[in-house]
Amino acid sequence: VSEREILDWLRKTVGNGIGDDCAVYIPRKGEDLLFTNDQSIEGVHFAPGLAPGAVGERAVARAISDIAAMGGEPRFCLLSLAMPKAKGMAWAKRFFRGALKARVPLVGGDLAHGDKIHIDVVVCGAVPHGRALRRDGAKIGDLLYVSGALGKAWDRKRIEPRLAFGKLLRGRATSCIDVSDGLSLDLRRVCEASGVSAEVDHVPIARGSTLERALHGGEDYELLFTMPSRFKPPQGSFRIGRIVPRIGSGVMYQGLELPARGYDHFGQS
Amino acid sequence: VSEREILDWLRKTVGNGIGDDCAVYIPRKGEDLLFTNDQSIEGVHFAPGLAPGAVGERAVARAISDIAAMGGEPRFCLLSLAMPKAKGMAWAKRFFRGALKARVPLVGGDLAHGDKIHIDVVVCGAVPHGRALRRDGAKIGDLLYVSGALGKAWDRKRIEPRLAFGKLLRGRATSCIDVSDGLSLDLRRVCEASGVSAEVDHVPIARGSTLERALHGGEDYELLFTMPSRFKPPQGSFRIGRIVPRIGSGVMYQGLELPARGYDHFGQS
Repeated sequence: VSEREILDWLRKTVGNGIGDDCAVYIPRKGEDLLFTNDQSIEGVHFAPGLAPGAVGERAVARAISDIAAMGGEPRFCLLSLAMPKAKGMAWAKRFFRGALKARVPLVGGDLAHGDKIHIDVVVCGAVPHGRALRRDGAKIGDLLYVSGALGKAWDRKRIEPRLAFGKLLRGRATSCIDVSDGLSLDLRRVCEASGVSAEVDHVPIARGSTLERALHGGEDYELLFTMPSRFKPPQGSFRIGRIVPRIGSGVMYQGLELPARGYDHFGQS
Repeated sequence: VSEREILDWLRKTVGNGIGDDCAVYIPRKGEDLLFTNDQSIEGVHFAPGLAPGAVGERAVARAISDIAAMGGEPRFCLLSLAMPKAKGMAWAKRFFRGALKARVPLVGGDLAHGDKIHIDVVVCGAVPHGRALRRDGAKIGDLLYVSGALGKAWDRKRIEPRLAFGKLLRGRATSCIDVSDGLSLDLRRVCEASGVSAEVDHVPIARGSTLERALHGGEDYELLFTMPSRFKPPQGSFRIGRIVPRIGSGVMYQGLELPARGYDHFGQS
């Protein structure tokens, strides 16, 4: 397989103008653009045996979830792929078919060979000007919600980015983040950015999962958000606690400090 | 070293709002945006022993060169980095200092551990609406130029993206590409996209280099462009040939077909 063969196939499949040194995007009037990138590395983010279609689908879905967390809708993506030469064209086709499932136009990327499969996906999304959901706006007295049950990662379900849900939060949620590294770590990030603390009373646990996984597991890709009590949260929301003045490390669970045990790439665990 | 330590240091160093799920960019009126990404993989794109500052600087410069080739100016970048845990904070700091040398605001990215250093840089650039330089506009009769001598890669000079030069080509060049994979391969890309052929008479060879390297070497990061003869090319341009009707594989050198021997990541060589 040659780089050129893969690119020729991609051009035909995607049906757009991949080919210049850069992709060109003409911004629409009144939109702010959102950018996120996420790596997916064989042996780090996914098991070596995972089917190529699933690798591609997950790699793109993880980045789209960040767009959902900002209340955006995806506009286009770029994808870098390094893979062993031995994987060949069949692997590449199945991988890209998975990556294209999300129907976010693929406008560019970079191919290289490498010892292991290594993907980096950039997704660009858009929100009406000034309406992006941030991490730093949680206010004392706000209620704390998640968009669904947590702890799902254990059975490696498909990632379904909460795009429609995120759009419903525009103008109402004071902060939002997607639960990708574990509730305990992601909630701490919101509290630190907002200069507040959170008291969590209870969390909805996915069927067959455990409290431990729901609190620290990560890869849930549900939205964690805060909202003043005068607003009704979208259907399907679970209230898990409230925002309080800054104390200690930021996150309390049933009266005790909740350590952040979510995933840190360079941590000891 | 923890992911958090690196991020905290970066936030302080970069002095902007890295921290949300996405970076937010508010497009300026009348600008088209350009996007490019480039991987830099240890053992593929650079030797394992290369100094961390040079790794960072080169990784970003390669992507900026794509912006130059479209006539753009860089607006911001995102950077994904995977590195072995053992490299530690000192390596990361030196790497990012190198990456920041180009003074393109770093607004986001992704950190992970991995067996080898693997970087993916996305640069967003901008051009006035409709003014991006493309590969597909070369016309029969246009003259063919490069922005400087070729074959430099052999001694691993610093990459200096031709940003100012690229801007001077707006509205005058009918096509443009940066010579990153070798003149023979990159010129073929222009000819294929434009449906024409090119006759190359002679090429300027960098001091101490060879004709072979100048024709096929790659990593020159000079601009290769076509322009109608009525325009005067920017100072420092070398005329290397002309555009002719489509024949054979697209590129002729001194009357003979020039095989594309530039770099293909999945090729046999």
